[in-house]
Amino acid sequence: MATQYISTRHLRFLLHEVLDAPALQRFPYFEAYDRDAFDMTLDAAKQIGDTYLFPFYTAMDKDKAHVENGEVKVHASVRPALQAFGEGGWISSTDSFDAGGQQMPLTLFNSALMIFYAANSNTPPHAFLTQGAAHLLRSFASAELQERFVPLMYAGQWQGTMALTEPQAGSSLSDIVSTATPHPDGYFQIKGQKIFISGGDHNAVENVVHLMLARIEGAPAGAKGISLFAVPKLRDEDGQLVSNDVITAGIYGKMGQKGYVAAHLQIGENDNCRGWLVGEPNRGLSYMFQMMNEARIGTGLMAAATASGAYYAALEYARQRPQGRHPSNKDLSLPQVLIIEHADVRRMLLLQKAVIEGSFALLLQCSLYADLEKHAQGPEQRKAHLLLELLTPIAKSYPSEMGTLAVSNAMQCLGGAGYCDDFPIEQYYRDIRVNAIYEGTTGIHGLDLLGRKVMMENGEAAALFAQEISETVGQAMQADTLRNMAIALGDAAGNLQKVTMHLFGIARNERAEVFLADATLFLEYFGIVTIAWQWLRMAVAAQRALPDAAGEQEKAFYEGKILTAQYFIEYELPKTKGLHQRLSSPERVTMRTASEHLD
Amino acid sequence: MATQYISTRHLRFLLHEVLDAPALQRFPYFEAYDRDAFDMTLDAAKQIGDTYLFPFYTAMDKDKAHVENGEVKVHASVRPALQAFGEGGWISSTDSFDAGGQQMPLTLFNSALMIFYAANSNTPPHAFLTQGAAHLLRSFASAELQERFVPLMYAGQWQGTMALTEPQAGSSLSDIVSTATPHPDGYFQIKGQKIFISGGDHNAVENVVHLMLARIEGAPAGAKGISLFAVPKLRDEDGQLVSNDVITAGIYGKMGQKGYVAAHLQIGENDNCRGWLVGEPNRGLSYMFQMMNEARIGTGLMAAATASGAYYAALEYARQRPQGRHPSNKDLSLPQVLIIEHADVRRMLLLQKAVIEGSFALLLQCSLYADLEKHAQGPEQRKAHLLLELLTPIAKSYPSEMGTLAVSNAMQCLGGAGYCDDFPIEQYYRDIRVNAIYEGTTGIHGLDLLGRKVMMENGEAAALFAQEISETVGQAMQADTLRNMAIALGDAAGNLQKVTMHLFGIARNERAEVFLADATLFLEYFGIVTIAWQWLRMAVAAQRALPDAAGEQEKAFYEGKILTAQYFIEYELPKTKGLHQRLSSPERVTMRTASEHLD
Repeated sequence: MATQYISTRHLRFLLHEVLDAPALQRFPYFEAYDRDAFDMTLDAAKQIGDTYLFPFYTAMDKDKAHVENGEVKVHASVRPALQAFGEGGWISSTDSFDAGGQQMPLTLFNSALMIFYAANSNTPPHAFLTQGAAHLLRSFASAELQERFVPLMYAGQWQGTMALTEPQAGSSLSDIVSTATPHPDGYFQIKGQKIFISGGDHNAVENVVHLMLARIEGAPAGAKGISLFAVPKLRDEDGQLVSNDVITAGIYGKMGQKGYVAAHLQIGENDNCRGWLVGEPNRGLSYMFQMMNEARIGTGLMAAATASGAYYAALEYARQRPQGRHPSNKDLSLPQVLIIEHADVRRMLLLQKAVIEGSFALLLQCSLYADLEKHAQGPEQRKAHLLLELLTPIAKSYPSEMGTLAVSNAMQCLGGAGYCDDFPIEQYYRDIRVNAIYEGTTGIHGLDLLGRKVMMENGEAAALFAQEISETVGQAMQADTLRNMAIALGDAAGNLQKVTMHLFGIARNERAEVFLADATLFLEYFGIVTIAWQWLRMAVAAQRALPDAAGEQEKAFYEGKILTAQYFIEYELPKTKGLHQRLSSPERVTMRTASEHLD
Repeated sequence: MATQYISTRHLRFLLHEVLDAPALQRFPYFEAYDRDAFDMTLDAAKQIGDTYLFPFYTAMDKDKAHVENGEVKVHASVRPALQAFGEGGWISSTDSFDAGGQQMPLTLFNSALMIFYAANSNTPPHAFLTQGAAHLLRSFASAELQERFVPLMYAGQWQGTMALTEPQAGSSLSDIVSTATPHPDGYFQIKGQKIFISGGDHNAVENVVHLMLARIEGAPAGAKGISLFAVPKLRDEDGQLVSNDVITAGIYGKMGQKGYVAAHLQIGENDNCRGWLVGEPNRGLSYMFQMMNEARIGTGLMAAATASGAYYAALEYARQRPQGRHPSNKDLSLPQVLIIEHADVRRMLLLQKAVIEGSFALLLQCSLYADLEKHAQGPEQRKAHLLLELLTPIAKSYPSEMGTLAVSNAMQCLGGAGYCDDFPIEQYYRDIRVNAIYEGTTGIHGLDLLGRKVMMENGEAAALFAQEISETVGQAMQADTLRNMAIALGDAAGNLQKVTMHLFGIARNERAEVFLADATLFLEYFGIVTIAWQWLRMAVAAQRALPDAAGEQEKAFYEGKILTAQYFIEYELPKTKGLHQRLSSPERVTMRTASEHLD
């Protein structure tokens, strides 16, 4: 087992040197969060990771969640971890003091989350899915409902879930058919089936509160007729928790994240399931999107953090494992060299570092936008809102897709050992793959980006994004060592705009199907440019800090940032060339292909 | 479970319409193999796949190979399959009539192997690793040794292995330290450890014969001092099989291919292990390379075939699963459309088809070269030999790397269902990943291609390859519908030559480390151009056949080939643009990065 799973130095670099996140202190809500508070929070998170999470990561894969005598059992380490999250105030941390929270900036909270997920991507999702569900209640539910559920959720004693997917409605939420029938006593009778419900049932909590989508009888078809309900597994009757007719039909045998249950739920089979309406009828999907946007950032974050765990395991191996010799000196009387001495191994390590740290940078950038969206005003608020909307599909998809590739490279660093369960890499490889499926597949995010986000508000978000890149390019042009990188990013951003215009030409002249056919490739292109922008920002900050770096280790740290930025510009950014060619081509091969051509 | 796992129609297309493989009949050795013999052989292979292999694929993953009371137990379906392979003459099929074989062309045999591996990538490797080991004995061992081992191996009763890897010698075979001490009775006493030995021990056979590398006392250091031995698990003493002191210390917990054992062997712990020298002393590594070249083609083949199994499962799902609506018609009163109606799903299916069928094409092309290398003469023989040498690293690596991506796309077609073990995709995803590690990692093949093959015989192989591409481009230029593709391939091949020259400029002026630093990317570039060439060949053959296609299904079949070729030219070939830019760049970021920059 590796001994490191994340670089908290990198997180501090992002928070303090790239984003200047403690400047959020200017908002009264965050006034307690000076630089020291940021650092102490990271230290506290690392303590949790080291104590409750990392030591159990591989154990909970081997001793996976399972059904035993009708009860869903998760690994014994989950309950103490949830208690620690609850008692440490982590689940409520971003909420207000009034509500028992700590008014923590999301930027800081998400940094802590990176630590938790890098330590163990199976346990923390329980707590932070609960957090998302609690936020939904806090935002839209009546005071009474909040009081009934939120404190126990924040304490880590009750699990929260999002119960959206049904057998016939996965990506297509409009097609949800679960029903809700009003009852004179104020609740609704709920009936239906929900599948793939993460954290849907398990023995590390006393109860589960499902934030569930269903249709009230007579509601309009499609998205406009979906309402949101709080549906507990057990309901309170005269101070007793009794069954609420939410039955776990089974749990899924997943390739990875085996410590984290996905349940198939049957609701109201005995016509005895009660749900409580959250907010207004028929607005459930719009409420849910608040949670889903948070959850999308959270998914990207889980992916990047999982890749981080794999990276440090691979790095440790590469520094200890001797194998082979240099091409220019094959003298067999000399001992073999460490594999980190091989350029191709360093390339694979740089790939991982570039993907992981670049993803973390974007995710904290988006988290900062989320803080500003909520607490800033006027143009600053609007800008943050639009950039967050625009970049959410990237922040979800880039770490998921490229993190999967990064972990594959981690495995390749270990060779055969990486494929075997004596080392943790194979688990990271299985675990990370789900992130490109969770919370909307990559294809769905491509449609969201190209079909909605790029042109929202008449393209204002895209224009703001172009301005951000220009600004970073301008800063980088000042430094000799960064100029080539700045030029490369400027060119790529210009080309991305050209391709976008080209695609909108198609949108004007042809069917929407043609316009959106390669939206996934557009997402990939946009993602590469976005992460290149983040790397150039980091390079600018590192270049600025280098002259005053205290000692060899700090110097190497900043040099490593600039080298990794160069790796990204040299090895990753050029991938946009091929995407550009494809997206500019008039050839519509996927449109001309029919089912019978695919046998 | 899907009902199809491979397209035998595609194999017949390759054999008859692209390669004209039955023309091998002109060689006396193959005179029995007319077109009917080819087709009957494929039918017989399909029968085996349907009966002994496909029905057990997922079962042997769930009920995986394990140690029970000191015995390594594999799935109960393995023994009857090995018997069927033995009794059907498959293991000996390419060997001469004299040796009990069928003088089958490798081109045909490997087509059958594609069927076997697509049906089940866990069982057939047992038999065809045995075949490789038997071929080694047939090529280099004394008549007496052959007689002792080969017939039982060909019968499927004894397992053969290749026992190369040691704890300190994985990719670096020069560093093998297992020892062989001559004994007056003509055998050697063997002592050492071998790890990751596929098929190394199991209960579906009576005995295991390890083709093992070791050093005879006093042998020179490095590759020149390695000898090859036949080391059985049980040895014959007075007609009794007794232990030969080859102890299975354990089997590896692998992420995939759980039905196929990888064993850790301790040899001669009690100084009672006997091995018999194969061929001459100190020539073991060169002998082994014969087997490894076959095994490398076999690994590529296993990868492409595994991806084929996943593809047909995804295709079936895409044709049955309704989800979502078209962007231009979201009328909720209409039923949801099948997901194959979504362009992005078709793109993912085309990607898989392009990778799998393109890989099969290259693998059979290489198999044909192998047949010609052995049976043709003069320039034809030399050309086949050189092209086989040049293309072996591609034939091994491209299907392994891109097949892994193809299966990931298969999983993505299924969404959450793809991540769960109710469907076979997650097993394909785990199983295929090992192929980029087996038989030399991708990085090793990059070094082989750029460091050795491209310039072998003063670049003659590379020149022959360029000629082959020119010829195909010339043919394609005749057809209006193929001209754009021909031009694109011609350009890409020209650019590949430019990059190659550029890299050889570096080789002349700088250290070998710099020259070879990005060999893996060069391999990728070369691989894309190679598969594009194969697709253009297929498009030419399909275009030729289209006018006479018998019926709608055949017409769709040929149109599907041309569309998939277009997919490849439009979506895959452009990836060379980015690789070209990177490989042409003077920036040496991986060379300038040191261990301390990677924290």
